[in-house]
Amino acid sequence: MLSEFDLITEYFNRPRPGAAVLGIGDDCALLAPTPGMQTAISSDMLVEGRHFFAGEDPQRLGHKCLAVNLSDLAAMGAKPVAFTLALALPSADRAWLQGFSQGLFALADAHGCELIGGDTTKGPLNICITIFGEVTPGQALRRDAAQPGDDIWISGALGDARLALAGYNNELALSAQEQDAAGARMHLPTPRVALGMLLASQRLARAALDISDGLVGDLGHILKKSGVGATLDVDALPCGPVLATKDLDLRRRFMAAGGDDYELCFTAPVSSRAAIIAAGAQCGTAVTRVGVIETAPGLRLVDGNGVALALRLQGFDHFAGTAAS
Amino acid sequence: MLSEFDLITEYFNRPRPGAAVLGIGDDCALLAPTPGMQTAISSDMLVEGRHFFAGEDPQRLGHKCLAVNLSDLAAMGAKPVAFTLALALPSADRAWLQGFSQGLFALADAHGCELIGGDTTKGPLNICITIFGEVTPGQALRRDAAQPGDDIWISGALGDARLALAGYNNELALSAQEQDAAGARMHLPTPRVALGMLLASQRLARAALDISDGLVGDLGHILKKSGVGATLDVDALPCGPVLATKDLDLRRRFMAAGGDDYELCFTAPVSSRAAIIAAGAQCGTAVTRVGVIETAPGLRLVDGNGVALALRLQGFDHFAGTAAS
Repeated sequence: MLSEFDLITEYFNRPRPGAAVLGIGDDCALLAPTPGMQTAISSDMLVEGRHFFAGEDPQRLGHKCLAVNLSDLAAMGAKPVAFTLALALPSADRAWLQGFSQGLFALADAHGCELIGGDTTKGPLNICITIFGEVTPGQALRRDAAQPGDDIWISGALGDARLALAGYNNELALSAQEQDAAGARMHLPTPRVALGMLLASQRLARAALDISDGLVGDLGHILKKSGVGATLDVDALPCGPVLATKDLDLRRRFMAAGGDDYELCFTAPVSSRAAIIAAGAQCGTAVTRVGVIETAPGLRLVDGNGVALALRLQGFDHFAGTAAS
Repeated sequence: MLSEFDLITEYFNRPRPGAAVLGIGDDCALLAPTPGMQTAISSDMLVEGRHFFAGEDPQRLGHKCLAVNLSDLAAMGAKPVAFTLALALPSADRAWLQGFSQGLFALADAHGCELIGGDTTKGPLNICITIFGEVTPGQALRRDAAQPGDDIWISGALGDARLALAGYNNELALSAQEQDAAGARMHLPTPRVALGMLLASQRLARAALDISDGLVGDLGHILKKSGVGATLDVDALPCGPVLATKDLDLRRRFMAAGGDDYELCFTAPVSSRAAIIAAGAQCGTAVTRVGVIETAPGLRLVDGNGVALALRLQGFDHFAGTAAS
C-alpha cells in the first residue's frame, strides 16, 4: 500500500528547478510573477461518472483534465505557467497513477506548464486542477468585449466529441472505427493555447471563450456579458470529420450545442480577418468565420442561405439533464 | 431546481470590485500581483466522510474548508489575497448553499480574501479551494530552513480537535459539553494568519508549517527538509482546554499526534524569543516554546524532566488508516 507521501514523491515530484521559486513539498508553492504581467487563474473539477466514464483510461484522463484548464488559459490569451493538482482517489493504484501522471505531464511539458503543488486524498475519484498563466495587462480576451460588427470565429472543428458521447450512450449506432475517431476528440481535446496567445498579443480578437458546454450556450455568455446579439450561420460551422459523414440535422445540432469541444469561439473586427487567418496558419489551427455580432439582442441561428433555423438545442448544465439533445 | 449558473450567481457572486482585476464569470480570473511580491499558492481538497462527517453543518464546513487553506498561507507567512472554489455537490440544495456560503464568506471577509472563480458540478460532496497570497521575496517561512539551536514553537493549543474526533468515534466517552467545546476546535479552526505574517515580515522565524496531520509527523517534515533533528518536550506542549482535563497519557498522545489542529509549528533563533512573545501578544495568539532543533537526526520525545518518552504515535495518512491512535 502506497502512503500519501510515497505517492506524491513517486509519481508527481519531478526534478527541480522549474518555473516556480518553490514547488511541491511545502505548505505553499511560490511563484515569482513576471514583472508587469497579470496572472490568469482557472479551476476545473472533473468527477467520475459526470465528466468521464468510470474506468476511463488514466493516461487519457491525465491529458484531459489538464487540457480543459489549458483551454481556459487559451480563451484568455494567457501563457501557461504552472498548475496545482488536487486528487481524490478510491485507492492508491500504481498502474492508474503511472498512466495518469504520464498523460498529465506529457501535455504539461508540451506547454511548459509546471506542477507546483496540490493535494491527494482518499475519496470518490475527483480531479481538480487550478492553472496559472500570464497575460499582458489589457490584452486578456474577456467575454464582455464583443462589439456589433465583429466577426464570430471558431477554431478547429465541432461536434465529434458530442458524436462520441452519443455512441457511448447508444443514442446512435457508430462503427468501432467511428467511435474510436470521434472518441479521440472527446478524450484528448487539444487546447488552442498558441492561437489564443497570438489573438491576444497581436490584439486581433476582442471577446473569446472556450466551448465546453456547447457553442450556442457558450456564445450566449459572450452576448450577455457584452450586451449584444448575434447571427450564427450554422452551416458555416466547421464540422468534425466523423460527424461530417452524418445527416444534416444531426450535424447542425451537434455542432451548435455539442459540448466537450474545447475549441475557441472569439469575436474580432473585420479588419483582423487576414491576420487571424495568418495566425491560424502559424499555429496549424483551422479558423472559420461563422457569424456576426449585432446590436439587436438574442442569438439568431440561420442556415447557409440566411434562413432562420429552429433547432431543438439545449446547453449542458451540470445540475440539470445530461448533454444536449 | 437551481441551474449551475443560477447557483453561482445567487450564492457566490458578490459586488465588485474586489482585489482582482477580473473575478467570477470569465474563463479565467485575473489578478494583478503587487510589484516585487511573490505569489504563495496552496490547494486543499476536502472529501465528505474523510475530512468531515456526512451531514456536517454547511456553515461550519464553509469556514473550515477556507480555514485550512488560510492556514497554509499562514505557515508561509503570506498575506491572503484571493481564492478559487471548486465544488462537487450531490444536489443544488438552497439551505446547504446558503449556510456554506455564509461560513465561507464570513472567514474570507475577515481576512480580505476574495473569491475570484472556480467550478461547480454534480458529484459526491467534494470541496477544493486553491488560495493565493503574497509574500516578500526571501521572507517566506519554508520547511527547509530550520537550523540547529533553533527553538521550536507552537501557536495556540493542541489536541482538542483530536479529542472531539475520539468522542464522535466512540473511542472515548465525552460529556455533551466536552464534545461541543472540543468539537468547535475541530469544526472551526482558527488560521494563524496574523502571526504567520508577523513571523515572516519581522524575520523572527526560520522554518514553519501548519499542523494538520499531527505535530510529530508534521514536525518530521521540517526535520527531513532541513536535514536536522530535534528534541521535543511533550509536557511543554500547549494543551487544548478540554483535553487538559484528561489523563496524562491521553494528553501526550493527542497533543503530539492529534491532527486537525491547524496551529503553526515554527523554528526560530534564540535571539527571537522576546520578539516572538511580543508578536503573539500583538495577535492575541499564545506562543509556546516546546523544543529545540539539533544536529543529530531524528525526533526525540522527552517528558518535562527530559526523560525519553516512548509514545505509541501514528501520523495521519490519507491512504492508510484513520487518525493517530
